[in-house]
Amino acid sequence: MTEVNPNDLMSLCKRRGFIWPSFELYGGVAGMYDYGPLGCALRNNIVDMWRGIYKGREGFVEIDSETVNPREVLAASGHVENFADLITYCQKCGAPYRADHMVKGIFDNPDVLTPKQLEEAFVEHGIKCPACGGDLGPVDEFNLMFRTNIGPGSSRVGYLRPETAQGIFVNFANLYRYNREKLPLGVIQTGRSYRNEIAPRQGMIRMREFNQMEVELFVDPEDKDWVRFHEVEDGTLDLIPNTTLEPVTMTVGEAVEKGVIANRVLAYFVYTTKQLLTGLGIDSKRLRFREHEKDEMAHYAADCWDAEVLLSYGWTEIVGIADRGSWDLTRHAQFSGADLTHLKRFDEPREMEVEKVAAKHKALGPAFKSKAKAIAAAMESMSPSDIRDGRLKVSVDGEEIELTDDYFEVVKRVEKVAGIRVTPHVIEPSHGLDRIFYSVLEHAYDQKDDYTVLRLVPAVAPIKVGVFPLMEKDGLDKMAKEIYEKVHTHRVEAYYDGSGTIGKRYARMDEVGTPWCLTVDYQSLDDGTVTIRDRDTSDQRRIPASEAAAVIDSLLAGKEFSSI
Amino acid sequence: MTEVNPNDLMSLCKRRGFIWPSFELYGGVAGMYDYGPLGCALRNNIVDMWRGIYKGREGFVEIDSETVNPREVLAASGHVENFADLITYCQKCGAPYRADHMVKGIFDNPDVLTPKQLEEAFVEHGIKCPACGGDLGPVDEFNLMFRTNIGPGSSRVGYLRPETAQGIFVNFANLYRYNREKLPLGVIQTGRSYRNEIAPRQGMIRMREFNQMEVELFVDPEDKDWVRFHEVEDGTLDLIPNTTLEPVTMTVGEAVEKGVIANRVLAYFVYTTKQLLTGLGIDSKRLRFREHEKDEMAHYAADCWDAEVLLSYGWTEIVGIADRGSWDLTRHAQFSGADLTHLKRFDEPREMEVEKVAAKHKALGPAFKSKAKAIAAAMESMSPSDIRDGRLKVSVDGEEIELTDDYFEVVKRVEKVAGIRVTPHVIEPSHGLDRIFYSVLEHAYDQKDDYTVLRLVPAVAPIKVGVFPLMEKDGLDKMAKEIYEKVHTHRVEAYYDGSGTIGKRYARMDEVGTPWCLTVDYQSLDDGTVTIRDRDTSDQRRIPASEAAAVIDSLLAGKEFSSI
Repeated sequence: MTEVNPNDLMSLCKRRGFIWPSFELYGGVAGMYDYGPLGCALRNNIVDMWRGIYKGREGFVEIDSETVNPREVLAASGHVENFADLITYCQKCGAPYRADHMVKGIFDNPDVLTPKQLEEAFVEHGIKCPACGGDLGPVDEFNLMFRTNIGPGSSRVGYLRPETAQGIFVNFANLYRYNREKLPLGVIQTGRSYRNEIAPRQGMIRMREFNQMEVELFVDPEDKDWVRFHEVEDGTLDLIPNTTLEPVTMTVGEAVEKGVIANRVLAYFVYTTKQLLTGLGIDSKRLRFREHEKDEMAHYAADCWDAEVLLSYGWTEIVGIADRGSWDLTRHAQFSGADLTHLKRFDEPREMEVEKVAAKHKALGPAFKSKAKAIAAAMESMSPSDIRDGRLKVSVDGEEIELTDDYFEVVKRVEKVAGIRVTPHVIEPSHGLDRIFYSVLEHAYDQKDDYTVLRLVPAVAPIKVGVFPLMEKDGLDKMAKEIYEKVHTHRVEAYYDGSGTIGKRYARMDEVGTPWCLTVDYQSLDDGTVTIRDRDTSDQRRIPASEAAAVIDSLLAGKEFSSI
Repeated sequence: MTEVNPNDLMSLCKRRGFIWPSFELYGGVAGMYDYGPLGCALRNNIVDMWRGIYKGREGFVEIDSETVNPREVLAASGHVENFADLITYCQKCGAPYRADHMVKGIFDNPDVLTPKQLEEAFVEHGIKCPACGGDLGPVDEFNLMFRTNIGPGSSRVGYLRPETAQGIFVNFANLYRYNREKLPLGVIQTGRSYRNEIAPRQGMIRMREFNQMEVELFVDPEDKDWVRFHEVEDGTLDLIPNTTLEPVTMTVGEAVEKGVIANRVLAYFVYTTKQLLTGLGIDSKRLRFREHEKDEMAHYAADCWDAEVLLSYGWTEIVGIADRGSWDLTRHAQFSGADLTHLKRFDEPREMEVEKVAAKHKALGPAFKSKAKAIAAAMESMSPSDIRDGRLKVSVDGEEIELTDDYFEVVKRVEKVAGIRVTPHVIEPSHGLDRIFYSVLEHAYDQKDDYTVLRLVPAVAPIKVGVFPLMEKDGLDKMAKEIYEKVHTHRVEAYYDGSGTIGKRYARMDEVGTPWCLTVDYQSLDDGTVTIRDRDTSDQRRIPASEAAAVIDSLLAGKEFSSI
């Protein structure tokens, strides 16, 4: 394991075309990066492996929803109210700062301080503007959503989505119908999300425009098992439970049995996350799952685990796996008035005690006179789930009437019912794609003296095979180009290189993580064979040029280099 | 060919999970659509075929750049100034309208009218607000970019990109270095772009948030050939040249020879576009290439062709293929001050007549006195390409001085040079992904009485194979589920269906374009075979269940159903 200097890695990324700071031509914008040819290919390979697991193995469906969201969606999700950092401006030069960042090192958890506490801390500890030494001003909330207007005028406020998840939640009814009204229902989405950071730092770890791969699994609240749980129950996990805050290694099965992870479906997807990350080349010794501490966990979450990897920045969250309960669907049902429940059908209708709205006729009569009867009927056709803030809204003869619980009560009756309506719970493995991308690079980075090798697993390597003529003459180049044309596809990328010494060309490919190189030499012209070289061992073998594409395919499918 | 009612098609799309109007839960937003499970899969398949051609066959590289762009980028591209529609508001109810849409039917080309002409037309023809009958107000420009602010405060204005192309242009220097300073350099990008329409109409044809697949090919201005041109020169194209405005069919070779298409590389990519679109299932009889008319073509474009398909909306542009000359790079070089040229190296240095800046000493002396000498030296170290609007800016002793051509001239001298610097020209095939998606659906749509079949080509079909047990009992369901597990991957999607009559299940798969279905019946339990049914012929054959995945793969690779 090489100690990584993130500056060295980012400089390699820039030089070789993985990542470029955005808009450098115009001075750049902090917290924004473009993916160059190698980065884009590597990122696409990561997405592909994620799809392979969730869409392929688990049979989840994928959707793609819009990035500009009207205000209503993000009011319901709570982002309009709560998606904010505390900001302070220098009173002299006007520079903006994240207020909690200014007292780091003074407080253990500066992000729990109130604006008032922060202002007092500035005074008490003499904290000034790092740029000009001026006084720091009042501390305010700054909402981190990019704001815009939809259509002409400013009447329809929109925001760039802060997460891809909401696009899935607002489509729940459509997705539920697509799934023929059955649970579980697994949905994935990958795409851009946005966070208008006050002062972005830490390279690709905090981006203003970032990429997510989110999974929302809707389950029956009473059935938190998973059909393939038995396949993973003996797998081990490195955990930091919030009860002890101490690292512990245990099997998935144990973790559920001992109540460390809340339930089987959540544990299954914690382990799935480990499978994905290690499959991408993340070092399992630098991967752990940390449970949110009790004051850190959202109030509605039944349980929440972060996949953390050890980077040069320290332990860094790259995936969060949460049991979010019924929070998301309940909020959208409340804010939109739509029914976002699942009808859990019985095998045959059952006699059940059900809750019903019953009108209080004695109170209604005097208050509503001739309308009382119609109001009572309207109320009794509604369900207790229609009650909002203790009130019911009915529509009688075109008139909207709101009723407090002076006029109705919820009573229990025995009835024959076909099933019960439940709001599905959500299991959410949410992946920070850029952070995963960066972690894959850091864990693959291996430097000895001046020589750098990215030990990327073949499945994610942007270029699968370099193709070289020993010299660019005597027909060697022609033969190498023909091999390139045969091997190269948009999924199995090949790279033709004819310039410089062969050692330099190997080094160039090692530096970008290319697992294999094919070289055409003079023997190739005689017997039609080429050498194939393995990145990690530098072993070389000869194979028929005509079989090159098939050999690369078999290596990509997992065949050992030593057995070709 | 079925006459398509777009409402029927959109209703199928909604019902079966191809496309859902966005944010319906909150009343919807015009011009926004989400891709449901089948739509997302179909769209990904389209992108994959596009990548196969450009990244696979042509060896272009793919990048992914940011969607929030700082103002500078879009000032250079001209979008801040010119990306606008004319707007008018009802003076009574305040409703906004596209001004040119209000006089459709009165003028042939309402989009060439000036604001003043439009205002006069409203009065003259008595045009009122369609909603309330009120008077229409003054006509103004409305910029179609979504505007936002980057970071806190409003100091840094940003826009959501109106096209993915700019992300490639601003990275030209990075890409050129990646390509080891060689031309041609082909770059592709797919992703979201935004156009804040005043009043979106025509479903997926005009979306506020849309998806592009753009290709920017940088070529030597003096070498507009293409290495594989000979492979396509006998292919035929249906063209509408801007000289005659009459449809004509000719080969690619003829089109170039007769000067109908400006050059070979442009013609090659016009034909590539035909290959892509017909490969996706677009009917070649409903596909034509229309050259931009002279007043329609951008002033900098050497030539520009639109791929138009016949839809229920009429002939609709879905791809534009343009030779944009040096426009884009020249603008960004001017606005950023960066060098965005290609050094065309000679095999060995040549004596050449080169253009140089020469100071006019006689004029400089009297005007600048003691500084004249330093100014002359500064000017002569610059190149004629540094002249902007006839002026040169020099920096002398920290002072910026701007000089008109009273003080310098461009002279020709013979010098030894290693190569010449040229600004690459850009060949741009720009694909509207949502429009292509919609066109693929319209051209696949086939309805007979109540029965609908989407005759999608297998490569784009979202589900490749339905897997059914004849009955969900007696172990048929178990066997069918095992087959589903073996066949289904995230690239070859299978769909298990056990409910309803077998005829109904076939119909459900036909309606979403699934090319094949596998059915497990009682014979399957005896001899291990299953039936495979072909969507377009309804032919059925028996194959061993153990070979199902391999048979599907071979059909996807192009094998005839009749030969399995």
